[in-house]
Amino acid sequence: MKKIENVAIVGGTHGNEVTGVYLVEKYRQYPELLTGFDFKCQLVTANQAAITANKRYIERDLNRSFKLKDLANSNLVSLEDQLAKQLNQQLGPKSNSKTDLIIDLHTSTAPMGMNLVLIQSDPFHLKLADYVQQRMDNVTISLESIEDHHFLMSIASKQILIEVGATPQGVLRQDIFEQTEQALQLILNYIQLHNQAKCPAPSNQIELYQYFDVCYMPQDAQGNIIGMVHKNIQDRDFQPLKTGEPIFKLFNGEEVFYQGEDCTISFINEAAYYDEKKAFSMARKVRFEI
Amino acid sequence: MKKIENVAIVGGTHGNEVTGVYLVEKYRQYPELLTGFDFKCQLVTANQAAITANKRYIERDLNRSFKLKDLANSNLVSLEDQLAKQLNQQLGPKSNSKTDLIIDLHTSTAPMGMNLVLIQSDPFHLKLADYVQQRMDNVTISLESIEDHHFLMSIASKQILIEVGATPQGVLRQDIFEQTEQALQLILNYIQLHNQAKCPAPSNQIELYQYFDVCYMPQDAQGNIIGMVHKNIQDRDFQPLKTGEPIFKLFNGEEVFYQGEDCTISFINEAAYYDEKKAFSMARKVRFEI
Repeated sequence: MKKIENVAIVGGTHGNEVTGVYLVEKYRQYPELLTGFDFKCQLVTANQAAITANKRYIERDLNRSFKLKDLANSNLVSLEDQLAKQLNQQLGPKSNSKTDLIIDLHTSTAPMGMNLVLIQSDPFHLKLADYVQQRMDNVTISLESIEDHHFLMSIASKQILIEVGATPQGVLRQDIFEQTEQALQLILNYIQLHNQAKCPAPSNQIELYQYFDVCYMPQDAQGNIIGMVHKNIQDRDFQPLKTGEPIFKLFNGEEVFYQGEDCTISFINEAAYYDEKKAFSMARKVRFEI
Repeated sequence: MKKIENVAIVGGTHGNEVTGVYLVEKYRQYPELLTGFDFKCQLVTANQAAITANKRYIERDLNRSFKLKDLANSNLVSLEDQLAKQLNQQLGPKSNSKTDLIIDLHTSTAPMGMNLVLIQSDPFHLKLADYVQQRMDNVTISLESIEDHHFLMSIASKQILIEVGATPQGVLRQDIFEQTEQALQLILNYIQLHNQAKCPAPSNQIELYQYFDVCYMPQDAQGNIIGMVHKNIQDRDFQPLKTGEPIFKLFNGEEVFYQGEDCTISFINEAAYYDEKKAFSMARKVRFEI
């Protein structure tokens, strides 16, 4: 198998998810922490304008801006569209990338624990995620595989996203910082083992959460939010939701009950998703043989 | 004692503390929930521009903009300075206010529980806070008494601030919403009892946290943050801090130890205070006879 020679560690794809921003800054200041590997690590601070503004993004979500058709569209000129094109030049270009693997560092305001997000389910990515999961507490793995992905990390042919929580936006918590660093170090270790063809035997099976739908906040005809996420499901990320359970409490006192199929929910009441009025994401558990 | 005739309930003094914004909106939609009192309740959404932007403030912290000298200073023209003058016209004017009592609704990203903030420690305010504390779980009372206060609620001669947490900014949690509503209803009940001279006997003593200092994040000579709040103190709001305990973990691995006097700390790693690089606030416990 081809060696992984160029890795990019990216923080600040979302400007108010500061854990990754500070971790990248720490490695910039103490580069000796990234030596001892047989591959190069490039440190990237993705959206400095959004970091300065302490906002997720300035004009458009950067992590939704990397579809090939968008990168090729010269009519898209928002700050983040321009940034996406620059990052695609710097790290890519997508589909023929000079970067072999991208690690993108994110946080959630929901108690997601250590959630690894894959956009491909081939053996390399499953083994990588399994390696981390076997060596760290409270690791879940999600799969968001769509054609021509919009994520920044889709620039490279290999990639993994770290989504850790709960932490408020704009806050650096030591526990969350250290969990991120631990997961990152395990990923780098795995790449090294992969390059040396010394990977330990993986688990036989791996369990992934595959998203299939999103549930929106209760709204009136004008789109005003008329209730809130029910405390029955608050903080129940990566736990099962059954048909008939209360999911919203309206301001008029009524409860709204879940009508969909039994599933696993996450990103429950996530601050970042209020702009789209998303209340939570729904996933099915899928088992893969490795 | 003079009756309280005009009460203002204020949400959105900080635009990303949405619990109060939605609670005010709920009462606007269901005004019958505020009937049955012998005083008038005015509902105020303080900083609509900051709410729309989902930011604490646009140009200047509105809740630091109500000193008499600032309200009288025509050179102060930021959005929040103008807003402060408008609100002072609408609810005040400060020192001769048409509003008798202001209740200002806030949240914190730190687990503050239900924290009532007073800026006066006369019998009325102590009895009011005591009434709530005796009827609700996890209530602490702080005192921030300074000459010519900068808080919005200082417009009126009587006032109380509700500071509840933890909740991320921009997120509406049912538990936090209901705690806010419970405290608010208790305050309104107390005003009614006060007007009818039917207040129950208060406790003999009340314990308040009086702030005396602030501890800033560790920084280099250029003001860059070089470490984080130590997990030893994270989430320990309203618990004691002793001299010699670790308070920061630097990115270079070193720990920083607290050198000050034994105290009680709160607003630990609060998201809103990163703009001033405040790490936590220090308070002394003070007992008052009621």
